Amino acid sequence: MTADRPLFPALASKQEAEGGAVLAPRFGADGTITCVTLDADTAEVLMVGHMNAEALALTIETGEGWYWSRSRGELWHKGATSGNVQKVVDLRIDCDQDAVVMTVRVDGHGATCHTGRVSCFYRSVPLGQKAADGPVRLVDVGGERRFDPKDVYGKG
Amino acid sequence: MTADRPLFPALASKQEAEGGAVLAPRFGADGTITCVTLDADTAEVLMVGHMNAEALALTIETGEGWYWSRSRGELWHKGATSGNVQKVVDLRIDCDQDAVVMTVRVDGHGATCHTGRVSCFYRSVPLGQKAADGPVRLVDVGGERRFDPKDVYGKG
Repeated sequence: MTADRPLFPALASKQEAEGGAVLAPRFGADGTITCVTLDADTAEVLMVGHMNAEALALTIETGEGWYWSRSRGELWHKGATSGNVQKVVDLRIDCDQDAVVMTVRVDGHGATCHTGRVSCFYRSVPLGQKAADGPVRLVDVGGERRFDPKDVYGKG
Repeated sequence: MTADRPLFPALASKQEAEGGAVLAPRFGADGTITCVTLDADTAEVLMVGHMNAEALALTIETGEGWYWSRSRGELWHKGATSGNVQKVVDLRIDCDQDAVVMTVRVDGHGATCHTGRVSCFYRSVPLGQKAADGPVRLVDVGGERRFDPKDVYGKG
């Protein structure tokens, strides 16, 4: 899938990006846009990931969630190892085309977070504190756990 | 609010970030983390923004949405100009502490997007196309519009 030309057209102008009907993602300095992944049934935010041009193109083409793993520096077919493949039911892009919201149904045991939880956002930040006054303590708000990561080899 | 020491502690380890009860955000190369902003009543994703340490600290302290505007290179109290201040009802951080999900109620006329729409995610990307075959056409899925940006001076 190494293209001789870019997979997506370049952005002609801010106006065209916002009003236009052509997908022309504005990839950042690291070559990615932000992807917010939602659960189709609960509307919960499952994770925030990153897509380079190839990951976005594969997501559109296959209807499954592909990302660029910044930590591993490689293309990442989410769930390829764990079985928790993300079946995309809706994909949206924002006004300036540097972020997508992807609504999915998760295959397998349904955990998205590598800690075994359904969602990566399992801790709440209490409001009303001054950070400069000392450490802000997080509150574990649960987050359903589908497996114990100690039992799982690999990640994906 | 220029602190002599960092507003948040540094991350000791991946394990501590994931299991720990201390807020220790992992700011990226540009000094920000990603913020996904949700509507408290509809659960809709309103916008994706970025927070530097000061914006995150101000959000926690004041309970209103503050961001770092990467395009303008300045701290951004969302709604300070337009009246659409974001009152935070819940703030969560993800496993590796480089993204937050912020649930808000929006004051004023309630538009979050500078195009006048309630949400920035007003266009859908149809699935099943090969990007390499040609431009991917976006579908306008509406998105309620609260004002005409031509009538509005300034942004915020």
